[in-house]
Amino acid sequence: MSYFDNVNKVKFEGSDSTNPFAYKYYNPEEQFNGKSMEEYLRFAVSYWHTFTGEGNDPFGAGTAVRPYNHFTGMDLAKARVEASFEFFEKLDVPYFCFHDIDVAPESDSLSETFKNLDEIVLMIKGYMKTSKVKLLWNTANMFTHPRWMHGAATAPNADVFAYAAAKVKKGLEVGKELGSQNYVFWGGREGYDTLLNTDMGFELDNLGRFFHMAKSYANEIGFDAQFLIEPKPKEPTKHQYDFDVATGLAFLQKYDLQDTFKFNIEANHATLAGHTFEHELRTARINGMLGSVDANQGDTLLGWDTDEFPTDLYSTTLAMYEILKNDGLGTGGLNFDAKVRRGSFDTDDLFHAHIAGMDAFAIGAKVAQRLIDDKVLEDFIADRYSSYNNGIGRDIVEGKTDFHKLEQHALQLTQINNKSGRQEQLKSIVNKYLLETFANITVK
Amino acid sequence: MSYFDNVNKVKFEGSDSTNPFAYKYYNPEEQFNGKSMEEYLRFAVSYWHTFTGEGNDPFGAGTAVRPYNHFTGMDLAKARVEASFEFFEKLDVPYFCFHDIDVAPESDSLSETFKNLDEIVLMIKGYMKTSKVKLLWNTANMFTHPRWMHGAATAPNADVFAYAAAKVKKGLEVGKELGSQNYVFWGGREGYDTLLNTDMGFELDNLGRFFHMAKSYANEIGFDAQFLIEPKPKEPTKHQYDFDVATGLAFLQKYDLQDTFKFNIEANHATLAGHTFEHELRTARINGMLGSVDANQGDTLLGWDTDEFPTDLYSTTLAMYEILKNDGLGTGGLNFDAKVRRGSFDTDDLFHAHIAGMDAFAIGAKVAQRLIDDKVLEDFIADRYSSYNNGIGRDIVEGKTDFHKLEQHALQLTQINNKSGRQEQLKSIVNKYLLETFANITVK
Amino acid sequence: MSYFDNVNKVKFEGSDSTNPFAYKYYNPEEQFNGKSMEEYLRFAVSYWHTFTGEGNDPFGAGTAVRPYNHFTGMDLAKARVEASFEFFEKLDVPYFCFHDIDVAPESDSLSETFKNLDEIVLMIKGYMKTSKVKLLWNTANMFTHPRWMHGAATAPNADVFAYAAAKVKKGLEVGKELGSQNYVFWGGREGYDTLLNTDMGFELDNLGRFFHMAKSYANEIGFDAQFLIEPKPKEPTKHQYDFDVATGLAFLQKYDLQDTFKFNIEANHATLAGHTFEHELRTARINGMLGSVDANQGDTLLGWDTDEFPTDLYSTTLAMYEILKNDGLGTGGLNFDAKVRRGSFDTDDLFHAHIAGMDAFAIGAKVAQRLIDDKVLEDFIADRYSSYNNGIGRDIVEGKTDFHKLEQHALQLTQINNKSGRQEQLKSIVNKYLLETFANITVK
Amino acid sequence: MSYFDNVNKVKFEGSDSTNPFAYKYYNPEEQFNGKSMEEYLRFAVSYWHTFTGEGNDPFGAGTAVRPYNHFTGMDLAKARVEASFEFFEKLDVPYFCFHDIDVAPESDSLSETFKNLDEIVLMIKGYMKTSKVKLLWNTANMFTHPRWMHGAATAPNADVFAYAAAKVKKGLEVGKELGSQNYVFWGGREGYDTLLNTDMGFELDNLGRFFHMAKSYANEIGFDAQFLIEPKPKEPTKHQYDFDVATGLAFLQKYDLQDTFKFNIEANHATLAGHTFEHELRTARINGMLGSVDANQGDTLLGWDTDEFPTDLYSTTLAMYEILKNDGLGTGGLNFDAKVRRGSFDTDDLFHAHIAGMDAFAIGAKVAQRLIDDKVLEDFIADRYSSYNNGIGRDIVEGKTDFHKLEQHALQLTQINNKSGRQEQLKSIVNKYLLETFANITVK
Repeated sequence: MSYFDNVNKVKFEGSDSTNPFAYKYYNPEEQFNGKSMEEYLRFAVSYWHTFTGEGNDPFGAGTAVRPYNHFTGMDLAKARVEASFEFFEKLDVPYFCFHDIDVAPESDSLSETFKNLDEIVLMIKGYMKTSKVKLLWNTANMFTHPRWMHGAATAPNADVFAYAAAKVKKGLEVGKELGSQNYVFWGGREGYDTLLNTDMGFELDNLGRFFHMAKSYANEIGFDAQFLIEPKPKEPTKHQYDFDVATGLAFLQKYDLQDTFKFNIEANHATLAGHTFEHELRTARINGMLGSVDANQGDTLLGWDTDEFPTDLYSTTLAMYEILKNDGLGTGGLNFDAKVRRGSFDTDDLFHAHIAGMDAFAIGAKVAQRLIDDKVLEDFIADRYSSYNNGIGRDIVEGKTDFHKLEQHALQLTQINNKSGRQEQLKSIVNKYLLETFANITVK
Repeated sequence: MSYFDNVNKVKFEGSDSTNPFAYKYYNPEEQFNGKSMEEYLRFAVSYWHTFTGEGNDPFGAGTAVRPYNHFTGMDLAKARVEASFEFFEKLDVPYFCFHDIDVAPESDSLSETFKNLDEIVLMIKGYMKTSKVKLLWNTANMFTHPRWMHGAATAPNADVFAYAAAKVKKGLEVGKELGSQNYVFWGGREGYDTLLNTDMGFELDNLGRFFHMAKSYANEIGFDAQFLIEPKPKEPTKHQYDFDVATGLAFLQKYDLQDTFKFNIEANHATLAGHTFEHELRTARINGMLGSVDANQGDTLLGWDTDEFPTDLYSTTLAMYEILKNDGLGTGGLNFDAKVRRGSFDTDDLFHAHIAGMDAFAIGAKVAQRLIDDKVLEDFIADRYSSYNNGIGRDIVEGKTDFHKLEQHALQLTQINNKSGRQEQLKSIVNKYLLETFANITVK
Repeated sequence: MSYFDNVNKVKFEGSDSTNPFAYKYYNPEEQFNGKSMEEYLRFAVSYWHTFTGEGNDPFGAGTAVRPYNHFTGMDLAKARVEASFEFFEKLDVPYFCFHDIDVAPESDSLSETFKNLDEIVLMIKGYMKTSKVKLLWNTANMFTHPRWMHGAATAPNADVFAYAAAKVKKGLEVGKELGSQNYVFWGGREGYDTLLNTDMGFELDNLGRFFHMAKSYANEIGFDAQFLIEPKPKEPTKHQYDFDVATGLAFLQKYDLQDTFKFNIEANHATLAGHTFEHELRTARINGMLGSVDANQGDTLLGWDTDEFPTDLYSTTLAMYEILKNDGLGTGGLNFDAKVRRGSFDTDDLFHAHIAGMDAFAIGAKVAQRLIDDKVLEDFIADRYSSYNNGIGRDIVEGKTDFHKLEQHALQLTQINNKSGRQEQLKSIVNKYLLETFANITVK
Repeated sequence: MSYFDNVNKVKFEGSDSTNPFAYKYYNPEEQFNGKSMEEYLRFAVSYWHTFTGEGNDPFGAGTAVRPYNHFTGMDLAKARVEASFEFFEKLDVPYFCFHDIDVAPESDSLSETFKNLDEIVLMIKGYMKTSKVKLLWNTANMFTHPRWMHGAATAPNADVFAYAAAKVKKGLEVGKELGSQNYVFWGGREGYDTLLNTDMGFELDNLGRFFHMAKSYANEIGFDAQFLIEPKPKEPTKHQYDFDVATGLAFLQKYDLQDTFKFNIEANHATLAGHTFEHELRTARINGMLGSVDANQGDTLLGWDTDEFPTDLYSTTLAMYEILKNDGLGTGGLNFDAKVRRGSFDTDDLFHAHIAGMDAFAIGAKVAQRLIDDKVLEDFIADRYSSYNNGIGRDIVEGKTDFHKLEQHALQLTQINNKSGRQEQLKSIVNKYLLETFANITVK
């Protein structure tokens, strides 16, 4: 039985191909940095957007036409698993990610919910045996049900805290069962709507306690996946505690959790926080905290999380530049936390969108690699900071100076020679690399 | 004598060139839509950013190192004219634009100011005789001097209104003298800072009166340049009356000025208003009001007018798409209302930046033309709206139906068949065209 | 039978009251501008937020605990009608507003949908006979169902256009049946998600055609309610055609619809468009187009429509200032297009929120009236613009001058004397009025 | 000799006063929390905005009419000192703040600059002997001169780093000489414009080194003022390293500087970062890092630092609430980092604006104190979090539980009872306190 009849396995056909269901730039088998492109980029499909999502928005009902929409309850859950593995295989993608309630329906009873989840996890485990697809990360949804209205680990209600603990405990067990490489915490309701009713200090202390207990339990059961915090500044909550990478860093340092976590960085969350995607990646990278990536894009003229499939080649190039400088993502990957537009409602769009995103990141990877190979930015930067290689500059870096000596140096300067930052030229060079990289490749 | 010693005439050398002072993509002589690229794109240099601007920002003094910075007063003004024509020639650009006080210093006395201006205009006119460069547009600066603090034509002070009239009268005369193809109105102070002290209706009525008088005077002296309004939503004023193209349209219709004006559309002003650049171009285009373009780009993560040189190829492609669908810009052109970053302070950056922008628009033009030639979007759109070609759809368009008939039609529908909007696929096709256009061109 | 047991009729008890279910400032019987406060302010309850809304958000399910939640289908619809009239009476509010599908469930069959609606409208009509509550406006929801994914009157699908016509036709009939004072058009999906697939000019032409047909039909059936356009810049659609009041004005003028429509202005839509609430009211007012108000407030640090109940007294004061200067809202009113926060989930919050909003507007009304009575702003403004009362200023206003005379005037000026705009002082005066108005009133 | 002839000493005259040059709400002598209002609020005048600022903006020249504008160089500097002390005395304000180059002109030679500064500092010291005004904080301007174009302590140029060190060394000496209570670091150029040319990790390491050297030197000379970092997310730089309080916290922890610094929090910088003012105050407070406040307000519909005088009573109330909960500001104060609007150009506006701001904070202080006295929010919050006072909640807080026990607890829950957050009711209560506090006070 097939859910996606009119699409065969998506293959690399090169940029000359006019087949809409072929990769034009992403070639999974091509060698890239000593690995195959597939092994290096580690693309993942988001279960929630692709199989569970229905295409609703705050003003509209779901539009998605899906071949399993006539099912309900556990039947629907099972049909989605079947469909998902067909999709993974046809797309030839190596990873997927899910929240617990993406895969199995939530019941009023927690034990029933767990039972549902166990059944589906067993089914997924079965499929994974005969598939190459692996679990990049899993997580517990602690934001959809009304019980989370005021938060989960930061709720003003101790019962809710306990419920959250039970959900994460189960999530860690599921992660271990399915060999997940990471475990993600996104605190969609961990924050506040108004300070008028909020004890922020208490809530953050509780969040610290929660994370320590989570790590203890993971250690107890021998689940050694990388823990990841996924920052987002707002939406649905007015103010989320994990605003951005820097805010997460401050929290992790304060609560002695810096060795326990890395970050899962989402492009659209970065822009909602007023940062570029590459800024967040860089901030994590220079702190040794770049764990994984939610690969999507936002619309900076809109003020909410649009979770669009990534197609902007500047964004994918600059993101891949950071990832390459980080020596890749380790256990992390590029997860398409992206949804087809509400008007892109049929199953073909699921393929079009993933192909668009995978091609865009493959292009970005190649352009970034070529920029690095040619030391385009590296040489410019090395020259720009060269005054720190000797003399007073070297003393500064080596901690051999103080305000007395620096003042003496400054007082004897007759002139300060700054060099142009050459932003315009650097941007036009990036354009040249963007166009040239594929000029070379296309020609055979 | 030379102001830009270390740069020779900038020529097209193709994308293989590593000469930073060469065009890689813009070939002025290449044929494009029956004209040379130079004739079609009609690039213009902005006098204010390139020759008058000093690189200051709200928190910092000017950084620009310019070869005429040791001059002052009229000597400085004259040196700038000399330098500007050397720059125009070396850049090989066909147009320039200026505000009155960019080229000649303002005095406390209006008659002295006019005298200064006359002297410089004469000098410019002399240079234009032996240069191919032409004046795309000129305008009067009515926002820098303290007298304009509360507005010019919308000032609460009738003396200021009169002063503004005198400045524009002179501007129209200068435009005629120099053969300007357009005359621009940007109302930087035409707006309000707080409604608490503002009679908005009165101010807008005055603005209408002012424009009618300006047109009368232009007619009187036989100056037939196209009048252009340049919308901007805010900055420096809290709220500017020419917020965006639609707001301008409402104003022009109300005051019976629609036949007198078109729009000069700036990319960065569009994004400050919450629109894309292409939205503003489209809005003007479908109303027959697309006059000219201020070619720059903003930073949508910053909330002010950054006036960056345009390098984003998506933006230049989509802008050129609108311009091509408009059969070009008529008497308008692509004016680089853009400034080098404050840290790009030397004269080389002026060349780098213009080259970056001209190449970016040349690329955009070719990609857009190829999209149009292949009817990529046209065919998709034709199919998407095809239900209006016959039956009830045709009746709607032809005005042959009413709510009774439409209800009858709706009641008998058993199903409504929408088609996917295919946004993701269309975006990946644009990427393909972006990369492919130059894959083809580069290889020879 | 009662749905809101623990709340009795909400009465005015004055600011000393500690009863959370009493008005502290809004006294419906108090005289205000020759009417009762109730007659002047014309408050309306929004059926959708208060009775149909469930407290869901893009990341969460509904939280609202409502006494009729155990019903479904038409039973639920009927229970909501019963509850709504109990609520109207207990709140003592004179108006309500609804979309068709707020009150009656939509079926797959249009005729079935109409049948449902007819049944509920009959029931509402019955309740209205014994209630003082009247219908401020009704409208047709053309954004929730998947069929509207690409628009309604601007859909690329003629069947959808026809369906929209049928819905509005029915809406006009329902409005007439229930004596609605206005009919609202909010084009939530009338816009585009990407220009890549959009024929914007064609879509706007169709919108113009649609409105003309709607007016014809209203005339035909003798429904003389005021037609209202409700501008919103975005959300759910990337770009909505009715961006703001000015954009609406441009559209209405172009399609010769200016006499047919006024505007229904929403505070939160204004801020999403980059305007203050009072700016939009002023723009409508000076064009004679201020029809009605959706009284809510947004959070300018969030980028989406939060639809909060209005509690900001600056906003209510400045809004009421515009309304008072407009001699009230005519057939319009102050409709609470506002929803309780998702965490304010019980029925008490519905009362708290409306009381908060009604008190806030009553306070705003009194402060604004006192500002007007004392001519605080009027005198300042009269003085500020006084140079237009005689001499060259008067000539400008009366059209008796031209650029020649104005230049002569400007050339002989030895100095220009601007006056300070005094923004800081005016703001502190507003504060004083805010605090003093109730210092006087409270003490008796 | 007098610079502000037409204003006498500004006194408290109560809310009935119609004297524009009187405090209506701020009574310096009134007791407040065991101190005089003057001692508690610790208002400071910003030298730069009030005496050095000229009213220019990115599109306009200075408008400010000041009685010392005819002076230049050191004569101007001295006249400003004279004027400032007259202003401090007439305004009866206890503190002031300055950057080095606000008070003394910068020369091309650093030693000359220091000489200028020494001369003016001596003069200021003389004035301070006979004045009650004290120095709240001083700082070194390291953003205006072109040399800082790429940063100061984070510059890619070691000479610039040394120059910055010399400036701060001098600043610390000046602070000690004048008995400054704090020393502020605002890194206006510490950040980047594009990552394409930036080694972010290296720059931040240098910033850490710089701060350690600064502290060493302060210790060496026995200057025990509180060090303060002033966060700002952007402007003038595209991305500033001290984005917000949380980002600052991450930095200070990483570089072991947390005990050395507190934060100087500015309202307008908070909103530019996407936070409310009170959020930033709260974040600092719960980390014991609330040092001082730059009291102003922004315009959240504009994207740049407007530095308006604070008049929004909601903002001052919620700010004072945090300050009161912090037991005041210690050595910090409320510094008006605010400028009169460009159209408020005469010296009267300087008085109007400060009076507006001081009255607004005095009102906020009283309303906040009354909210606290009545435990309005405290009681609500205590009840809201009461589930943590015993049982499983207490175990969580006391660290006596783990995921096993929490899961057991969760599994036996039959229902989760959340309580409404009551945001709407709480907001209407704040309104009531705002109006009532002064209803009581006004009546005598």
